[in-house]
Amino acid sequence: MTKICRYGTHRVIEPKGVLPQPAWKIDNTPNIYENEILINVDTLNIDSASFTQIQEQSQKEGKEISQIILDTVAERGKQHNPVTGSGGMLIGKVAKVGQQLKNIDLKKGDKVATLVSLSLTPLYIEKVNGIRNETDQVDVEGKAVLFESGIYAKLPDDIDDNLALAVLDVAGAPAQTQRLVKDGDTVIVIGAGGKSGLLCLYEAKKKVGPNGKVIAVEYSQEGIDRIKEIGAYDEIIQGDATNPVDLLSKVTDINGGQMADLTINCVNIPSTELSSILVTKERGTIYFFSMATSFTQAALGAEGVGKDIDMIIGNGYAQNHSDIAINILREDQAIRTLFQRIYT
Amino acid sequence: MTKICRYGTHRVIEPKGVLPQPAWKIDNTPNIYENEILINVDTLNIDSASFTQIQEQSQKEGKEISQIILDTVAERGKQHNPVTGSGGMLIGKVAKVGQQLKNIDLKKGDKVATLVSLSLTPLYIEKVNGIRNETDQVDVEGKAVLFESGIYAKLPDDIDDNLALAVLDVAGAPAQTQRLVKDGDTVIVIGAGGKSGLLCLYEAKKKVGPNGKVIAVEYSQEGIDRIKEIGAYDEIIQGDATNPVDLLSKVTDINGGQMADLTINCVNIPSTELSSILVTKERGTIYFFSMATSFTQAALGAEGVGKDIDMIIGNGYAQNHSDIAINILREDQAIRTLFQRIYT
Ligand SMILES: NC(=O)c1ccc[n+]([C@@H]2O[C@H](COP(=O)([O-])OP(=O)(O)OC[C@H]3O[C@@H](n4cnc5c(N)ncnc54)[C@H](OP(=O)(O)O)[C@@H]3O)[C@@H](O)[C@H]2O)c1
Ligand SMILES: NC(=O)c1ccc[n+]([C@@H]2O[C@H](COP(=O)([O-])OP(=O)(O)OC[C@H]3O[C@@H](n4cnc5c(N)ncnc54)[C@H](OP(=O)(O)O)[C@@H]3O)[C@@H](O)[C@H]2O)c1
Repeated sequence: MTKICRYGTHRVIEPKGVLPQPAWKIDNTPNIYENEILINVDTLNIDSASFTQIQEQSQKEGKEISQIILDTVAERGKQHNPVTGSGGMLIGKVAKVGQQLKNIDLKKGDKVATLVSLSLTPLYIEKVNGIRNETDQVDVEGKAVLFESGIYAKLPDDIDDNLALAVLDVAGAPAQTQRLVKDGDTVIVIGAGGKSGLLCLYEAKKKVGPNGKVIAVEYSQEGIDRIKEIGAYDEIIQGDATNPVDLLSKVTDINGGQMADLTINCVNIPSTELSSILVTKERGTIYFFSMATSFTQAALGAEGVGKDIDMIIGNGYAQNHSDIAINILREDQAIRTLFQRIYT
Repeated sequence: MTKICRYGTHRVIEPKGVLPQPAWKIDNTPNIYENEILINVDTLNIDSASFTQIQEQSQKEGKEISQIILDTVAERGKQHNPVTGSGGMLIGKVAKVGQQLKNIDLKKGDKVATLVSLSLTPLYIEKVNGIRNETDQVDVEGKAVLFESGIYAKLPDDIDDNLALAVLDVAGAPAQTQRLVKDGDTVIVIGAGGKSGLLCLYEAKKKVGPNGKVIAVEYSQEGIDRIKEIGAYDEIIQGDATNPVDLLSKVTDINGGQMADLTINCVNIPSTELSSILVTKERGTIYFFSMATSFTQAALGAEGVGKDIDMIIGNGYAQNHSDIAINILREDQAIRTLFQRIYT
């Protein structure tokens, strides 16, 4: 009998000894073990880098997009793009919950989004119903398996699915902001006009209280306009986070020489580590949500300027992160209106 | 006239607008500006990840280690390994103190170690005198420049220079361990038989108290022997940190299914993020001191297995870190004897 594992290693076919994500091939048999959840898949949200690659390959090889996806899934047991290495997420309805998962808040028929990557999710496709090129989405009939360690969110009835998905993608950021911000803090959000940045501004502004201060740093005029539309800030700095010397002087000017207790980095570009370090106080904290963060740039950067600060790697998951993120849409009409316009 | 800056941006050649660490090339002219310190360099202590890479490159390309170092310094103006991104540190004697640095406790002839990375330190090498493969040290004749923001330690009289240097190189690790470990914690140190690992074991063992537990994870028999010689542990696991499934089961076996409150990663090789994540408790903390840590592997790895843990980037600097590290040598004869044998 197969020994089942909360991380799904019992489904790893090749190579042995690794976890499902780095594995080349996993077992996608659509019958679940006792610690798994079976999902009837409606839609795959292919990661944007992966979808672009698939589109290019389709044009080059004259092969249908749906066939490329079917081939990958047949070969690997998961929609794990062999070129880009990335996956995406999916939405569907719960078909069956394994007997061992007694305390889970899911029942047959619940609509869910999986919050773990498709690059580790066993997937079995019966039929591709349609490709939506504008949104990187693929409608399918099929089954997916969620491991015991896998995270998911029930899709709310009161919010458009695509809006919920957009927000769930960056749910870790506002959840961590809630945890890290203390009353009276000066908080700087870098890349504040983007999707995660705006949600962080909102949570930070709620938590700093009347004696705290939230400073939004954003590059583009469009981003500044979005920040103003939301209104959750005390100061806005228009600046380039890849230029630490310039940003430092702008923060110094606007904040009487004081740096931040907490800096939240939400940009989508590399080389912003040093700016984040320079605008943070001695013994302050930086939360790097940006996936473009370089570990060595951050570690050596702080040492290089002699700053004793705590720097945190943006874990995409935090307890209740999906509820926290979705609730922002319920609490704040300005964010909901803006996000509805942009993401649906 | 060049406008001088406490962070040394006046020496950045390429690209402009960045700080010396991320810069590709800096000016290593061995004449100082008014806010700089000139040092006659005796020894470079190459970062372990960098030295390992240089050794491999030397074997593969049949090029001398000294030539690889000379080429890097000629090309970049600093010993900034272009593959690993890391540096190291140096010891030498103060040759000149800039006029603007009135309040500094340094004078010509003082023996110092620079505690900022070689990856941002202007370095001019006249001659390589010798390579010490066992200790990652390189004896040179040359000059280095310390910026106004740069940190340093005067070398103590009661401790051999090379011994002090070896310990100062990783001084951030025991200092952070002191901060992060709480009474009663279960602490796992991965790569525990290495230089930083042993110092972390020692500090962790002091702080966990009688109800806590320190588990040392190490790959090689030599490392295990070093750990036993020091004696600062409750359990030792011989295992490969690049194999998360195997390590998880070993920790589970030895610790009654309990994971760590705090995991300290001190390895010198890549792909150990998932092991560190799996052996850490929900809401526990990982301190990644290893420079081979990948930000995305850590962030996506934790999300992929649904672990809500805090992951900290190992800042090489913490207040008093040099005193904390050097004091271990004064407090503990076993560590001093071992390090004296290995590093001097
Ligand atoms: N840690 C995790 O688990 C996790 C999960 C999901 C996403 N992420 C990462 O989080 C980051 C942000 O995601 P997002 O969806 O919020 O992205 P986004 O909506 O594209 O936002 C990025 C923001 O950064 C701004 N920006 C770009 N360059 C800048 C500069 N030089 N200076 C200042 N601001 C600048 C952008 O301004 P413009 O208006 O000029 O574009 C934009 O407002 C990405 O790196 C993503 O990979 C991490
Ligand atoms: N964050 C910072 O500011 C900073 C500053 C300095 C250094 N560092 C980094 O800290 C790390 C450690 O430095 P160090 O001087 O302590 O290095 P070290 O003395 O070489 O120690 C590394 C240890 O890891 C062990 N190891 C190697 N592969 C392993 C595996 N697969 N599983 C378990 N253990 C394994 C090694 O065992 P063996 O006996 O088999 O080699 C060795 O004992 C390096 O990555 C370095 O770049 C960071």
